[in-house]
Amino acid sequence: MGERIVVIGAVAAGTKAAARARRLDAGAAITVLTEENDVSYAGCGLPYYVGNVIKERRELVVRDPDSFKANDNIQIMIRTRAVSIDRERKRVVAVGLDDGREFEVPYDALVLATGAKAILPDVPGIHLDGVFTLRSVADADLLKSFIGARAPRSAAVVGGGFIGLETAENLASLGIGVTLIEMMEHFPPGFDPDMSALIGNCVRENGVTVLAGERVAAIEGSRGLAQSVRTSGGSIEADLVVMAVGVRPNTGLAMEAGLGVSRNGAILVDEFMRTTDPQIYAVGDCAATTNLLTGDGAWFPLGSTANKMGRIAGTRAGRPVGSAGSSQALKGVLGTSIFKVFGLNCGRTGMTLRESLDRGHDAVSCTVPAPDRAHYYPGARDIIVRLIADRSTRRVLGAQVVGSGVVDKPVDILATAITLGATVDDLATLDLAYAPPYSSAMAPTITAANVLLNKMDGLLEGITAFALKARLGDPELLLLDVRSEPEFIVSHIDGSVNIPVEELVERVGEVDWSKEIVVICRVGKRAYRAYLALKARGFDRVEILDGGMCTYPYDTV
Amino acid sequence: MGERIVVIGAVAAGTKAAARARRLDAGAAITVLTEENDVSYAGCGLPYYVGNVIKERRELVVRDPDSFKANDNIQIMIRTRAVSIDRERKRVVAVGLDDGREFEVPYDALVLATGAKAILPDVPGIHLDGVFTLRSVADADLLKSFIGARAPRSAAVVGGGFIGLETAENLASLGIGVTLIEMMEHFPPGFDPDMSALIGNCVRENGVTVLAGERVAAIEGSRGLAQSVRTSGGSIEADLVVMAVGVRPNTGLAMEAGLGVSRNGAILVDEFMRTTDPQIYAVGDCAATTNLLTGDGAWFPLGSTANKMGRIAGTRAGRPVGSAGSSQALKGVLGTSIFKVFGLNCGRTGMTLRESLDRGHDAVSCTVPAPDRAHYYPGARDIIVRLIADRSTRRVLGAQVVGSGVVDKPVDILATAITLGATVDDLATLDLAYAPPYSSAMAPTITAANVLLNKMDGLLEGITAFALKARLGDPELLLLDVRSEPEFIVSHIDGSVNIPVEELVERVGEVDWSKEIVVICRVGKRAYRAYLALKARGFDRVEILDGGMCTYPYDTV
Repeated sequence: MGERIVVIGAVAAGTKAAARARRLDAGAAITVLTEENDVSYAGCGLPYYVGNVIKERRELVVRDPDSFKANDNIQIMIRTRAVSIDRERKRVVAVGLDDGREFEVPYDALVLATGAKAILPDVPGIHLDGVFTLRSVADADLLKSFIGARAPRSAAVVGGGFIGLETAENLASLGIGVTLIEMMEHFPPGFDPDMSALIGNCVRENGVTVLAGERVAAIEGSRGLAQSVRTSGGSIEADLVVMAVGVRPNTGLAMEAGLGVSRNGAILVDEFMRTTDPQIYAVGDCAATTNLLTGDGAWFPLGSTANKMGRIAGTRAGRPVGSAGSSQALKGVLGTSIFKVFGLNCGRTGMTLRESLDRGHDAVSCTVPAPDRAHYYPGARDIIVRLIADRSTRRVLGAQVVGSGVVDKPVDILATAITLGATVDDLATLDLAYAPPYSSAMAPTITAANVLLNKMDGLLEGITAFALKARLGDPELLLLDVRSEPEFIVSHIDGSVNIPVEELVERVGEVDWSKEIVVICRVGKRAYRAYLALKARGFDRVEILDGGMCTYPYDTV
Repeated sequence: MGERIVVIGAVAAGTKAAARARRLDAGAAITVLTEENDVSYAGCGLPYYVGNVIKERRELVVRDPDSFKANDNIQIMIRTRAVSIDRERKRVVAVGLDDGREFEVPYDALVLATGAKAILPDVPGIHLDGVFTLRSVADADLLKSFIGARAPRSAAVVGGGFIGLETAENLASLGIGVTLIEMMEHFPPGFDPDMSALIGNCVRENGVTVLAGERVAAIEGSRGLAQSVRTSGGSIEADLVVMAVGVRPNTGLAMEAGLGVSRNGAILVDEFMRTTDPQIYAVGDCAATTNLLTGDGAWFPLGSTANKMGRIAGTRAGRPVGSAGSSQALKGVLGTSIFKVFGLNCGRTGMTLRESLDRGHDAVSCTVPAPDRAHYYPGARDIIVRLIADRSTRRVLGAQVVGSGVVDKPVDILATAITLGATVDDLATLDLAYAPPYSSAMAPTITAANVLLNKMDGLLEGITAFALKARLGDPELLLLDVRSEPEFIVSHIDGSVNIPVEELVERVGEVDWSKEIVVICRVGKRAYRAYLALKARGFDRVEILDGGMCTYPYDTV
């Protein structure tokens, strides 16, 4: 009789741990308990299933308990709730949801993969019909059947995180009028305010009403059915409400068993996924991790991290410590994440500029618009790279990339670079793959690194759109727009003065020496030329608007 | 009067150096000499211009001398040949190609960006009409006008490198019957033989006749016009011949001036692009560089490297040593490259498996087919990742990625990782961007790293398709195909035995204990299950066919 391995939870991390343990230990008895009907499903695909981008339920739920039994000799018990853990006797007490029968499952190694659950805020009307969360396949089934049966015309999505944004898009694609309600001014989290404003603009341009900085006060309805949402700012019609205000780790079982829980509320684990009890592992959305950049505790519940954690716990559970493979560890994450909303690709990794400054870094950033491949190759589209580094260590700290072009590639390059401690100098000389269908000769990542090097080397000063907006109206500031007159006429920042770059040298007498000058163009290139011309003529308080008008997300005239 | 900066060559590296120098030194007198009519053009786009993928010439030639004059105060002298360099008197002797007038240009800093030229092998008929190279816009103009005027029905492309493959595709897309002639058995360079065989298969499947391992003996024609190509293997009809057998650095000027030239024939430079004369820099396709992995001299003429080199030389030429920005250096390259041929994306970085073994590494590799995004997300396509590492240092050494899916992203992640000294363990836990439209939860790079870890940790043994092919017919070898019977019937390796994985345990008695067993399935997953089952039952000489039948590029029955 081999090792007895018990796993609680059967979505990504749990099934990964079980499958990996089986591969390393042919003789182990492996049992997985789950409350749900479905196992090993792709939770991240749920918004797309709701929007019929993914048409078939079976595409999300690839494997069933029978296949785990047949292929891997893994016993999955569905509709079975783990009630408690008897750490002394190494047993899980479980109950069958259908027959109410309670029983015990003994373990030598226990893996907790209890996941996270959607937060349901305690507001009046939260339990009305037509109010949904979107966390499990079962949730998606309910939401889809409601849409099918009731054909809602209006929906409120509460929460401007990734799931909220993806859900807003997918509901809108079904012809439903969507209002997105988010209590923060800036969303989604993980983006600097000016970058997130670009995302918000895109959502609005695609017909979604966005209420930012508003709290949900109540959901109101009649005859048990949701009809409207009352917020701190007013009331909006909503035949359908999707609550996407976030998730919290499912740690009841772990806490009752006396396992350590981190400050962020997730189960404390070391880099080998061991909880404070060496026989018990925790993986996936219920487990804490570490922020690789800060060393702080972190919690980023994502399928990618869940799979890595599951593999490590499965390795440990399936083999004695010190045996092959057992050295693999998850030192932490960067909070890398990505989502698509209305054709806009939005990705990020590491720290934002604001976080970098808050943590005391001598942070410097740039905002660089660039085509995602050779500008002359068909299909080239623009992206905007916000890159952040520490001026003193020259280390890359973080990045945000947004645009209709390819953003996952630069984000992954940057996540890799940050993980391995790259400086901006390293970044600027990376030997990245170049051919016209894939990249420009100077890849966007490298262009951004070069702009940041210019700033770090004192060859260029810039101001972010966010910082500029905060200073609009400052009489000390001269906004000098160096685009052509036709471009300027179409739209410009209120109060700016237009001198096309070609005329700047001859008209330099018109530029007020006593002011701090912000030079503005479309993407930053002409502004840089103008900046250099002004610097060469003795102006010393000059900076450019980082990324130019094409990344300026605020109102213009 | 400022510094006098002279640049010879005005494509990528030369114009980059000039523009960067101008940005750092407003007062310098900057002169660029070029023999050509066109400047600052996208040489890498030429095959696509020939194939009308890029329709307009002006898309390739974005800037002209007037714009350099107006925007950057850079004087570009076209149709001007640099004849010699008088290092003593710091003067370039030049001659105007139109008027034959010779003159001298004095310099304080000189940047050589003389590029590379297409190799024209010394075979009979090489100067016939209808024989072309494809290196400059002028070459492309000639080729396009020939195609327009003569409507060739058949073409021979000589050379199976990236340019040859891209040209073959683009000529075929015009309806021309193309024969690709390459003297090596395996091409393009930089790919292991089995990976390159996948590329060759794709080219053949798209209607190009491939003659590998054949040399061109002569080009034959009548009335001065090419009609056929005679090779070591026979003769093929060709109204049009494109010679794409490679390029060599243009170093005549540098050598005559007594500058050091590296063993690979390119101008010797340090990491700041300084030649052996501290007043002279060399950049772009004429300049040598270093292989970051081996420390050896290297020469990879590519637009991406040219731009980096140009920027560094421009910084140095435009500013005194020690001033801001002057610390930027190019330590070397990995030989990262990528090309597209008939919808197949092919990228690589670092060392091949063969190179790794040749250099004495304890090299281990894997071949992993994987979808480029969530398998259930619309548009998901497969890629094949060959990953190579050193077993003792655990360092990643190289990668090749081929497929109809996204390959530039994994190649760039891997190039970044290798540059920064990543181990396979680092790779397996990278926090890469995950959402269904962009990646599977386990990104292909991470899956490949995990497979390689299994091998390095002794949990899996494998054999490459190339190594297996070399051993076909070995009576010691038992080929055990564990796919289903219908899959096996469609095609399998000659001599293999079929036991579906589901039946393996009960039919294990049929497996010959005395043999070395190679387990085969479609992608490697079922083979791994079978491998584990056999190992658990005491078989010890077992390995899987890396990547399975879907990456096996040789004949089957």
